[in-house]
Amino acid sequence: MIIVSAFKSVPPFARGLVRDLRVRWALEEAGLPYEQKLLADGEKDSADYREWQPFGQVPAYEEDGLRRATEWLIAALNSVEPAIQSLAAIDLFYAQEEWAKLRRPGAEEMVRNRLAAVQTALGNDHWLTDNRFSAGDLMMATVLRILRHTDLIEKAGLGDYLARCEERPAFQRALDAQMAAFAA
Amino acid sequence: MIIVSAFKSVPPFARGLVRDLRVRWALEEAGLPYEQKLLADGEKDSADYREWQPFGQVPAYEEDGLRRATEWLIAALNSVEPAIQSLAAIDLFYAQEEWAKLRRPGAEEMVRNRLAAVQTALGNDHWLTDNRFSAGDLMMATVLRILRHTDLIEKAGLGDYLARCEERPAFQRALDAQMAAFAA
Repeated sequence: MIIVSAFKSVPPFARGLVRDLRVRWALEEAGLPYEQKLLADGEKDSADYREWQPFGQVPAYEEDGLRRATEWLIAALNSVEPAIQSLAAIDLFYAQEEWAKLRRPGAEEMVRNRLAAVQTALGNDHWLTDNRFSAGDLMMATVLRILRHTDLIEKAGLGDYLARCEERPAFQRALDAQMAAFAA
Repeated sequence: MIIVSAFKSVPPFARGLVRDLRVRWALEEAGLPYEQKLLADGEKDSADYREWQPFGQVPAYEEDGLRRATEWLIAALNSVEPAIQSLAAIDLFYAQEEWAKLRRPGAEEMVRNRLAAVQTALGNDHWLTDNRFSAGDLMMATVLRILRHTDLIEKAGLGDYLARCEERPAFQRALDAQMAAFAA
């Protein structure tokens, strides 16, 4: 049986928009039956749920008793990068604008929350998935690097992880190739 | 031969961060040689490049003469949703805050630009990929629906497309299931 997590209750403006709809819809298109696991208030932040979905988001997905490994490539692009890119845009494009000054503390807090979730999920492992370097690490590293103008990665305890990614010879060759194009 | 697009020039703060690095790195990890197609100033907005990469972003990817079809599932999550979610957060969570009032026009403009790119890519087709409903349409529709409190989808000429997605029986069953959970 497929199990999809969803919230037991959300504010009216979010009803019909919550992102478990994406998986429910895909399963309906495929004609696959599923059960829902409804999360009570606050349950999204429990250690048990965070182990299943590191960011406390819905949906999380289970199939035949197997809790699907976090798709870190997607998580990097959709759960982590938007918060990081918002903060980077404030710092790099809009730093002198009044709204940016007012918004920056809240934007940084969102980033710190996301980074903490990544750090918790990584734990003492070297890589995000099965402790082997994967496309998820590649994408996460390029997302984390967007914060190189801050000390947030170090403060989140992700400095060693990012350094480990950046030490890969393939990364260095790729970086050199990008920089060489600018120098030409 | 694999060809990856990149920018000929970017401001110093972006050097070493531009997102073609992601594909360069992956190709280096795989040991696959590639050529770069460097875009001159403004070329990212040309009709020819937009046909390859609808949002004027890098990287775009070509392999053995085949320009890879846009990965609309990823595009929905990473090229469209962040702008839409930023605007929705302003309207639904922060409407009374000063920064949100100051930022809203710029945030809406970013959304309008993204929606225009989707509309141009869709053209007169019914669906985004090979004119058949796919996971890309499913994801794009759930992203566009986040703007239901505005008239931006209609104004962008995407109203018929979104209605077409929402008319699918599988969508209706999924929506009903989410709403039923809230009613319980």
